[in-house]
Amino acid sequence: MTKVLAIDVGGTKLSYAIINEKGEFLSEVKKTSTSKNIEELVQTFKNIIAENENEIDMTAFATAGAVNIENTKVDSSTPNLPKGYNDIDLSTLSAKPVFVENDANAAAWAEYKVGSAIGEDNNITITLGTGVGGGFIVNGKLLRGKSGRGGEVGSMKINGHGRVCTCNRKDCWESYASGTGLKYTAEEVAQTDPIFSTSIFKNKQPKEVTTYDIVAGLKENDEYSIKVFNIWKQDLITGLINITNIFDPETIVISGGMGEFIDTKEVENAVNSEIVVSPIKIKLAKAGNHAGMIGAALLACEKF
Amino acid sequence: MTKVLAIDVGGTKLSYAIINEKGEFLSEVKKTSTSKNIEELVQTFKNIIAENENEIDMTAFATAGAVNIENTKVDSSTPNLPKGYNDIDLSTLSAKPVFVENDANAAAWAEYKVGSAIGEDNNITITLGTGVGGGFIVNGKLLRGKSGRGGEVGSMKINGHGRVCTCNRKDCWESYASGTGLKYTAEEVAQTDPIFSTSIFKNKQPKEVTTYDIVAGLKENDEYSIKVFNIWKQDLITGLINITNIFDPETIVISGGMGEFIDTKEVENAVNSEIVVSPIKIKLAKAGNHAGMIGAALLACEKF
Repeated sequence: MTKVLAIDVGGTKLSYAIINEKGEFLSEVKKTSTSKNIEELVQTFKNIIAENENEIDMTAFATAGAVNIENTKVDSSTPNLPKGYNDIDLSTLSAKPVFVENDANAAAWAEYKVGSAIGEDNNITITLGTGVGGGFIVNGKLLRGKSGRGGEVGSMKINGHGRVCTCNRKDCWESYASGTGLKYTAEEVAQTDPIFSTSIFKNKQPKEVTTYDIVAGLKENDEYSIKVFNIWKQDLITGLINITNIFDPETIVISGGMGEFIDTKEVENAVNSEIVVSPIKIKLAKAGNHAGMIGAALLACEKF
Repeated sequence: MTKVLAIDVGGTKLSYAIINEKGEFLSEVKKTSTSKNIEELVQTFKNIIAENENEIDMTAFATAGAVNIENTKVDSSTPNLPKGYNDIDLSTLSAKPVFVENDANAAAWAEYKVGSAIGEDNNITITLGTGVGGGFIVNGKLLRGKSGRGGEVGSMKINGHGRVCTCNRKDCWESYASGTGLKYTAEEVAQTDPIFSTSIFKNKQPKEVTTYDIVAGLKENDEYSIKVFNIWKQDLITGLINITNIFDPETIVISGGMGEFIDTKEVENAVNSEIVVSPIKIKLAKAGNHAGMIGAALLACEKF
């Protein structure tokens, strides 16, 4: 049996556990915070590895940020990770082999190997959270591109409305189909559509309506909330149609916090009614909150 | 040396030649028309194969339409191919092995093996003609998807203008970035922008302005034509940005009739200034008019 120390490095939380080559957990998942100071963060990595190194065969990082093509370090990362993180060669932190993969790619691999797309050599995992992330399996292999940065489907421009994304570009799918996108749509509808005056949120300023308000409004049958959610859903569907026509996948797995609010069968039917390739399945993710760790561990087992 | 009889089945023309495993032509390219009658078309295939069967090791079809995952026949095809074409198992037409691939996929493979993207294991060929076609190489393999229909990037929705595509769907990239798209844009600008009244085409009805007019107008420094072309180019760039962010390719190869009108360096700079992955190259296709035949022949050599 192979034992992998899997470490998930998120913008705020850091989790780790020992996982075997079947993706099974051999230890409890331990958690700490991700330090904003790079020396502290590296020391945390060293401590975790030292604590486990005798027992394990290798270490696997699932991390936020773009990972280099050699799977040894992060090449570029989001501002919520400490400055200098991109300069750390993670592969030098252990005497045993170290593997590094982007967390969205690792999560997609977990869905392929032990989750909702087992045995499907062409499948996609889309994460709908604060942003929109994607992991693509093509011919049974992870799509990483020339530099390891492939899969940036959240930056796909799907619309000519001119909405400015958090990345400062315009009309990214992420700015429509993410949780943040739902808030933007809520604000736009509140500003332009009289339906807002009948809403349970009418006493708020358009800018103040939150993603959580809309989700709560759906349960109250608030018409404004339903309208906002339907626009959001259509923008989600547009992007799913695009990637379906390009990838012709068996399944698109939906993960992330926004996944629980969609009716996968309804979205599946809407996508299948407009694509030019053969029908797909849409399923919720099954590999769980720790999909990134599982996927990174399994990929490390394949590599070493 | 392997000798492949390569047959290119287009909507109007049918070409064939003998090609070796290096993609070199061992015979002249012969041409005939693609019959609109399925019995006649099958008879043409049989005659071509009979004429060459003693000399060859296998036959490779590069054909319009979606090819099944087994590479033996067409699953669905455009109306310009005869009714019943999808029912023909092309693999039964010869006693020797037969391989079938979609022409855009085959052309992309030719660019990868003997054209503008040699040795680049992640690359894309985009064909800009009457429509927009795509062939995607991921990890050194053709992206075919679960059913063989993958790569339908012309159906990617890039815009919220609501333009109706020839496929009756709305806002397909193809309806903007193809030769036909240039004509649609010419019509829209003529209808809405006073600049048309200063154009050398001002005596035409907006619907009458053709793709060729705009291309001719560019040479005459016609401001209306320049404006139309720039909008077309921006729509082309939007789609190229999308696929670059998803695939992180080394190169995007541009083929097809519209390719000669673009400045690849200018488009490359525009794409690279907006992507979140690492910079790409944009090059014109090099495998020539018979890229489909070459690619199908090379793929057949890999398979058999």
